[in-house]
Amino acid sequence: MNRTSIGIVEPHQVSLTLPPEGFVLESGRTLPEVVVQYEQYGEPNERRDNIILVLHAFSGDAHAAGFQSAQETRAGWWDDMIGPGKAFDTDRFCVLCSNVLGGCQGTTGPGSTNPATGTPYGLDFPVVTIGDMVEVQRRLMEELDITRLYAVAGGSMGGMQALEWTVRFPDVVERAIVLASTSRLNSQGIAFNAVGRNAIMSDPQWNDGNYYGGPPPAQGLAVARMVGHITYLSSESMRQKFGRRFQSGRPGGLAFDDQFEVESYLAYQGEKFVDRFDANSYIYLTKAMDYYDLAESWGGMAPAMERVRSALLVLSYSSDWLFPTEQSKEVVYALARAGKDVSFNEIQSPYGHDSFLLEASLQSELITAFLTGKKR
Amino acid sequence: MNRTSIGIVEPHQVSLTLPPEGFVLESGRTLPEVVVQYEQYGEPNERRDNIILVLHAFSGDAHAAGFQSAQETRAGWWDDMIGPGKAFDTDRFCVLCSNVLGGCQGTTGPGSTNPATGTPYGLDFPVVTIGDMVEVQRRLMEELDITRLYAVAGGSMGGMQALEWTVRFPDVVERAIVLASTSRLNSQGIAFNAVGRNAIMSDPQWNDGNYYGGPPPAQGLAVARMVGHITYLSSESMRQKFGRRFQSGRPGGLAFDDQFEVESYLAYQGEKFVDRFDANSYIYLTKAMDYYDLAESWGGMAPAMERVRSALLVLSYSSDWLFPTEQSKEVVYALARAGKDVSFNEIQSPYGHDSFLLEASLQSELITAFLTGKKR
Repeated sequence: MNRTSIGIVEPHQVSLTLPPEGFVLESGRTLPEVVVQYEQYGEPNERRDNIILVLHAFSGDAHAAGFQSAQETRAGWWDDMIGPGKAFDTDRFCVLCSNVLGGCQGTTGPGSTNPATGTPYGLDFPVVTIGDMVEVQRRLMEELDITRLYAVAGGSMGGMQALEWTVRFPDVVERAIVLASTSRLNSQGIAFNAVGRNAIMSDPQWNDGNYYGGPPPAQGLAVARMVGHITYLSSESMRQKFGRRFQSGRPGGLAFDDQFEVESYLAYQGEKFVDRFDANSYIYLTKAMDYYDLAESWGGMAPAMERVRSALLVLSYSSDWLFPTEQSKEVVYALARAGKDVSFNEIQSPYGHDSFLLEASLQSELITAFLTGKKR
Repeated sequence: MNRTSIGIVEPHQVSLTLPPEGFVLESGRTLPEVVVQYEQYGEPNERRDNIILVLHAFSGDAHAAGFQSAQETRAGWWDDMIGPGKAFDTDRFCVLCSNVLGGCQGTTGPGSTNPATGTPYGLDFPVVTIGDMVEVQRRLMEELDITRLYAVAGGSMGGMQALEWTVRFPDVVERAIVLASTSRLNSQGIAFNAVGRNAIMSDPQWNDGNYYGGPPPAQGLAVARMVGHITYLSSESMRQKFGRRFQSGRPGGLAFDDQFEVESYLAYQGEKFVDRFDANSYIYLTKAMDYYDLAESWGGMAPAMERVRSALLVLSYSSDWLFPTEQSKEVVYALARAGKDVSFNEIQSPYGHDSFLLEASLQSELITAFLTGKKR
């Protein structure tokens, strides 16, 4: 097993200290209790000014680097980026990553127990927004006695959170790294998310969200994941990875059960996902992404950008058709028009939306320069 | 109601005259009976040398133009292209269109009665190929006493059939029009089809294909159609058509049931599709598309193209990402290398793969020139 130098990391869980009314969401609804799961890589320095908050994407979690046990064979989802000497250099920085509100990996979400009923929330869970996720992260920082962030960084839905941080808490965030992301999803992105939700909700085992304690809507969730996977790859990377090869060797295609490699790959990805992800979280988190609209929340793109005091690094990826470069450029132009400190690069990569998870070396160079360089 | 000049057309059905062994498929399996539904627009001339065979796409049918009754509010799927003075000019040509083998609109398919059992085939129906579809069309022409085709024409899966005609029956086809198509689907296209099939097969009402006489797998089929629809549109056309507008007017997004316009549009398309399409046909026809590989069937692209004696017009559409221009060009280059008479154009259109159904005026000019011009 190829151990990274971070080694074993321990997950932490904290219950946020809340006012009597509970945690008030953007919708006006409240949560009586919010538990947050997070991990920490590296140590805070004495001035506590070396903290980087990493923000995970839709299907990610707090386990961004290292191994949770000696038995684990795969390191955290951004292990290539976080560690001694890596882009998020744990010799210098203290890197934190927490599971988002609405998630299913230790932070309060639709699968958590509703203290009012003693049973899982299911669809009684309130709609949560990217803003709500960021508010929870802010409270977590308070619990951890952190008042300034050296940087926030994330890709995809994590990039939305990074962007939201710079607008919502301009005095807290010094730098923000926004990868493969957007200030608002386009119509096609919303449509794919809607298909995923429909696939889940069409599964009789979904049962209006009340499946905890019984079998989950595994088939619906698997179909949703299959759709998602196609959108995370590029046509070119699928061609390179699978082409038109048959699973059972050539020639195939004249029996009903013959499968192309790409079919069995997707089916496998779908099944695997069911073991680690909650179908209701799929619904709530895709809704949070769909509803995210930075300009709309802050009275327009210009007023939103006016608030920003962080330096920003925005990266897009040439073959990403789910969060295409033009959407990153929209953010970059808006920041530039507001006179903000923003750098942009489109990384040439065949890996589609997944590039921010895979192109460690290309993006590390840019991120290291951004993190170690002077702020304007 | 905007009646086209073709007016009411009557569907025809013929049972093919078959040898004692039945209709032998590419797989070696046989069908004891093949019924074909077709429609005819315009009349054959005395020499019967003015026949154009139009080939429908995946979810199309034999009803390409005119109205089937005075009550019908929507004309056939290519009504803009077929009629007096139109691209396929019924004053000059006799245009035929038949439902494909494996379909569900009058031609033998998985929903047809298996003469051996007296019940619908379901999954006992053999896998059919694009080549099998073309063989059935050829037999239909024989039944109708047609030995030469002035042209074959189709988009998407219809384009695959047109291409197959030129290679399989080079002496029969004088001209072929291949729109938004390919000689083989790419990995991404196969993946989307696999998702659709999985959605259907995940629906408990699918019941291994045995649902005839009971409720069909409506939810699975609707999800499949939703995925399909996204791939037929372009990101740009979705942006123009739906943007980020909410169904219930603005602002929305903080209640669980809020929907974007694009969500309700897709849901509506999904539901509507269930009324007119058979889920098993969805499975068989997507498999036929996936398995189609012209080069593989004919010992390579060069040997395949060597056989061609038709003139070809190949059109692609700039925003079509499901059957992208590069795939049309592959066919065009292969034909050109073989010294064949081929014209190519990429039509600038925002409508994605659906362009061949929508860009009637742009493509009509090119098609009219091709049909009325001299063969080389």
